[in-house]
Amino acid sequence: MNPSTALATVLTDELARCGLTDAVVCPGARNTALLLALERHPAIRVHVRIDERSAGFCALGLGRCTGRPAAVVCTSGTAAANLHPAVVEAHESGTPLLVLTADRPAEMRDIGSNQVIDQTRLYGTAVRWFCEIAPDTAPAAPGPYWRSTICQAWRRTTGTDPGPVHLDVPFRDPLVPGTLAELPAGLDGRPDGAPWTRTADRGEVPAEPAPQVERGVIICGDGCRNPAAMVALAEATGWPLLAEPTSGARNAGIALRAPRALLGDPGFARAHPAELVVTSGRPGLSRGTLAYLRTARSHIVVEPGPRVPDPVRTASLVVPALAPPERPVPAGWWTRRWRTADAAVSAALDRELDRRPGLDEPRVARDLVRALPERALLLAGPSMPIRDLDLVAPGRPGIRMIANRGASGIDGVVSTAVGAALAHGGPAYALIGDLTLLHDRNGLLPGPGEAAPDLTIVVLANDGGGIFSELEHGDLGRVPGWSTTVERLFGTPHGVQVGTVAAAAGARHRLVRGPGELTDAIRAGAGGLRIVEVRTDRAEQSALRRELREVIATRLAGCTGSDAERDPALGARGAGA
Amino acid sequence: MNPSTALATVLTDELARCGLTDAVVCPGARNTALLLALERHPAIRVHVRIDERSAGFCALGLGRCTGRPAAVVCTSGTAAANLHPAVVEAHESGTPLLVLTADRPAEMRDIGSNQVIDQTRLYGTAVRWFCEIAPDTAPAAPGPYWRSTICQAWRRTTGTDPGPVHLDVPFRDPLVPGTLAELPAGLDGRPDGAPWTRTADRGEVPAEPAPQVERGVIICGDGCRNPAAMVALAEATGWPLLAEPTSGARNAGIALRAPRALLGDPGFARAHPAELVVTSGRPGLSRGTLAYLRTARSHIVVEPGPRVPDPVRTASLVVPALAPPERPVPAGWWTRRWRTADAAVSAALDRELDRRPGLDEPRVARDLVRALPERALLLAGPSMPIRDLDLVAPGRPGIRMIANRGASGIDGVVSTAVGAALAHGGPAYALIGDLTLLHDRNGLLPGPGEAAPDLTIVVLANDGGGIFSELEHGDLGRVPGWSTTVERLFGTPHGVQVGTVAAAAGARHRLVRGPGELTDAIRAGAGGLRIVEVRTDRAEQSALRRELREVIATRLAGCTGSDAERDPALGARGAGA
Repeated sequence: MNPSTALATVLTDELARCGLTDAVVCPGARNTALLLALERHPAIRVHVRIDERSAGFCALGLGRCTGRPAAVVCTSGTAAANLHPAVVEAHESGTPLLVLTADRPAEMRDIGSNQVIDQTRLYGTAVRWFCEIAPDTAPAAPGPYWRSTICQAWRRTTGTDPGPVHLDVPFRDPLVPGTLAELPAGLDGRPDGAPWTRTADRGEVPAEPAPQVERGVIICGDGCRNPAAMVALAEATGWPLLAEPTSGARNAGIALRAPRALLGDPGFARAHPAELVVTSGRPGLSRGTLAYLRTARSHIVVEPGPRVPDPVRTASLVVPALAPPERPVPAGWWTRRWRTADAAVSAALDRELDRRPGLDEPRVARDLVRALPERALLLAGPSMPIRDLDLVAPGRPGIRMIANRGASGIDGVVSTAVGAALAHGGPAYALIGDLTLLHDRNGLLPGPGEAAPDLTIVVLANDGGGIFSELEHGDLGRVPGWSTTVERLFGTPHGVQVGTVAAAAGARHRLVRGPGELTDAIRAGAGGLRIVEVRTDRAEQSALRRELREVIATRLAGCTGSDAERDPALGARGAGA
Repeated sequence: MNPSTALATVLTDELARCGLTDAVVCPGARNTALLLALERHPAIRVHVRIDERSAGFCALGLGRCTGRPAAVVCTSGTAAANLHPAVVEAHESGTPLLVLTADRPAEMRDIGSNQVIDQTRLYGTAVRWFCEIAPDTAPAAPGPYWRSTICQAWRRTTGTDPGPVHLDVPFRDPLVPGTLAELPAGLDGRPDGAPWTRTADRGEVPAEPAPQVERGVIICGDGCRNPAAMVALAEATGWPLLAEPTSGARNAGIALRAPRALLGDPGFARAHPAELVVTSGRPGLSRGTLAYLRTARSHIVVEPGPRVPDPVRTASLVVPALAPPERPVPAGWWTRRWRTADAAVSAALDRELDRRPGLDEPRVARDLVRALPERALLLAGPSMPIRDLDLVAPGRPGIRMIANRGASGIDGVVSTAVGAALAHGGPAYALIGDLTLLHDRNGLLPGPGEAAPDLTIVVLANDGGGIFSELEHGDLGRVPGWSTTVERLFGTPHGVQVGTVAAAAGARHRLVRGPGELTDAIRAGAGGLRIVEVRTDRAEQSALRRELREVIATRLAGCTGSDAERDPALGARGAGA
């Protein structure tokens, strides 16, 4: 057995012992030994992809769904640079990911040798660990070196601060196996099948009690480590739970339905100042939330890892876990105000969407969630889809929502959905815009001989980028002399028909034209990859969103509450606080 | 005028003064001011792209064609990581490229803020320079800071070691222009329209004379800085000129036609040992060339920059430029041997290709070059296309051939061709495989309202990766029990029809089925973007290539030459050397 094949065999065996179940691999010559070893391992499922960027995001999606790292394997050269976007997203979102890049040996570097680039620390500060792991250490037997390195990598990708780890593997010729004899002596793993170095369970994170305030608010953002604890805190205190769609807490029964509408309305936010905001995860989806955070009297961040999400720098305390206050909080009046407003504005939004005959984008988001089968997985696309879901998604306990919210890129979203769908034990869905679809079209291609994922991608086809209409660009675009420029640079109409993209990938495609057809299409899921297209008009949708903001403002004008609503028994104390 | 708009306006003005003519931009919010400033500048052509990876390669192609840097501009977040592959290729190939990434200001970093990643030194060692250039330096007027930074960047991207430069620009809110008033005082550039800091011409690189040997060989690889000087050296000495297709010397009348066949044949190479090999650029396309280099008695590298292409570490001398020897070299016998063999093997290959009725891949390469219009640009795709061109392309003076040979990636090739075509003042062509087409399908999409490039892409559609059949994988794939695995992991059949890819991009598509149809299709160019598809079978092509090697070996068996061929007048001296 040649050195490269021995190394690849040991790496693969040790990875499987650590718990690796999925590897996304891209063809190449330099990584040949590793691809063959992974493909031949009975416990590892190999997904072949021809675009490394898509492969990286597919592995990210697998890791996000399972909480365990998937491996992504590529050859040397720019192939490795193509993984950078997924590595960055894994870093920012705290998703475990094992990146294995084949490399050329040191003596082939920096001499203009073919397909040799500098892969050392290629992903800079975006990885938890970089390590080179080489095939030859003669005369020492490399078994402990190779196996302990894999265990270190596994520990660092899954640790207190999960994220990507980069192993660079300089394979040496010959790259293909000569014989497939047994491993040479000294390369075996632990006899009991365990990893070379096990990591003991870290045990419970110590929680400290929350302060005993009435006007508390809990905000869960993407990357919330323990959404169940936040739900329990809300149940114990009565503090309103405002959870972003991908926080893991949004579909809890106690979570508010329309937090985006409430905090997005300056009048409501002003009338409901918080004594304490508890955040867990990154609360960055809505400008209203960030503005509200700035007005809070105090802000506690619940975060067990080293990186503290504190986007407007208001945190006065970071705790690894937060328990309910030691004595009950008399916050019933406060809870009621939020719940009343939440119910009112949700109903108003629903009525407004139902009043319109067509398939507006927020309605697609709402109706999609309503129509999802039990225990479905839903990936929320960047830009408007996740914001529409945040605005109007109904609570659906059991539905899991994920997104690439680490860096919130438009890239790799299709592949992330495919990876997550491959790991999810049931039907998966995605709601994305057409630019997002185009950016990662290669993610639609399954590997040779592989079953397509059970994934339905609902595409909002508005021929360009809708979010800019919601930013300051929208106003600029209405200034005479600017509209053409703004549309060209930011609207970016591309003219690509979604049906042609589906056809190129061999995916099923259905264009739906009304709410009934959409619900039918969602419910008609029968496995495999399919694209459901909904055509919308960016200008119309922008106008609709302005009207929805007016609906919200009008409805909430009556929900500012008054001190008379406060529980009489607690009035004196509340006034004196 | 707000700070971000002032910065963007000054950067753009100074870039134009330095000579920037083209910017490839991707939509985003953070980079808004820069996009608007570029689009409004009368001397800068803006190309809008929705996929940053493609945008990076498009800018690379523009820079490769013109020798001047194009700018690529993206927003903050993973968008910037998507440029990494093009940056690496620009670095390795020595192509000027200005990367401008919008960023968030320092106070928004590392707090889980939306779309904020660590962009500092994002491309590691792959750039000539990294610099952050910030909007606000109050109370100092930032004019000299901003303008001199741009001039520094321009100097470093175009200098003795051309390559990518990364400017990270942390724009601050407001991101869109308030008014478009005149620039505030203190921001103007030099009154005469010149750059803030001009770089004086470096003048001629001093050349030293080559040693006076008979058996010299000149090898030009990709990245050869001064192909005309190598041609002149060959003319003055009679040393055979073996030039890779993209070296810039291949189409010179004096260049050999079949260098790949000659050096790829061990018998011929052994019978023609060199006293001296002169290389310029990276001679990495053929294993035969590298093996031949190892046997040379001495090896001089001609390279004016700091990075020395010396892929098998044989160089004993590096010179910035090489002049002919001071006295004439009596190498006539040596020249004739190479020319006779070259003519014989070229004719044999031609006959063998003509003998077959169908469109084999090497024949497509040859016939494409034959059919190209005068002064066409041809981009050679990675893997087999560039090797087929190396094997059989006829000499076509005036035809320019380029490729991404810095890192030889399969990525971004379509976009590189588009960028080069946009810069080339005439028809452009590319010869690529179907995997290469799929990898960078997004490169096919023109920006909103932009004219399509005059580019014909000839796609060799063999449903996967043909190069592996030519590597050791081919033998492994013929071993029982391995063929399915090898085909799945390395053949990677994808089943995507080229016509559907063209349809999705709105590009014209023509399937050609025979040599006549191919030539007709090439000659029928009428501007715009079109795809000419040729379907081939990987197994058949692999068999053909084995037969071509036999044809070469058979023909060259009679070309080993003998000392009797040596010029009698020089015999004694040659024998005594």
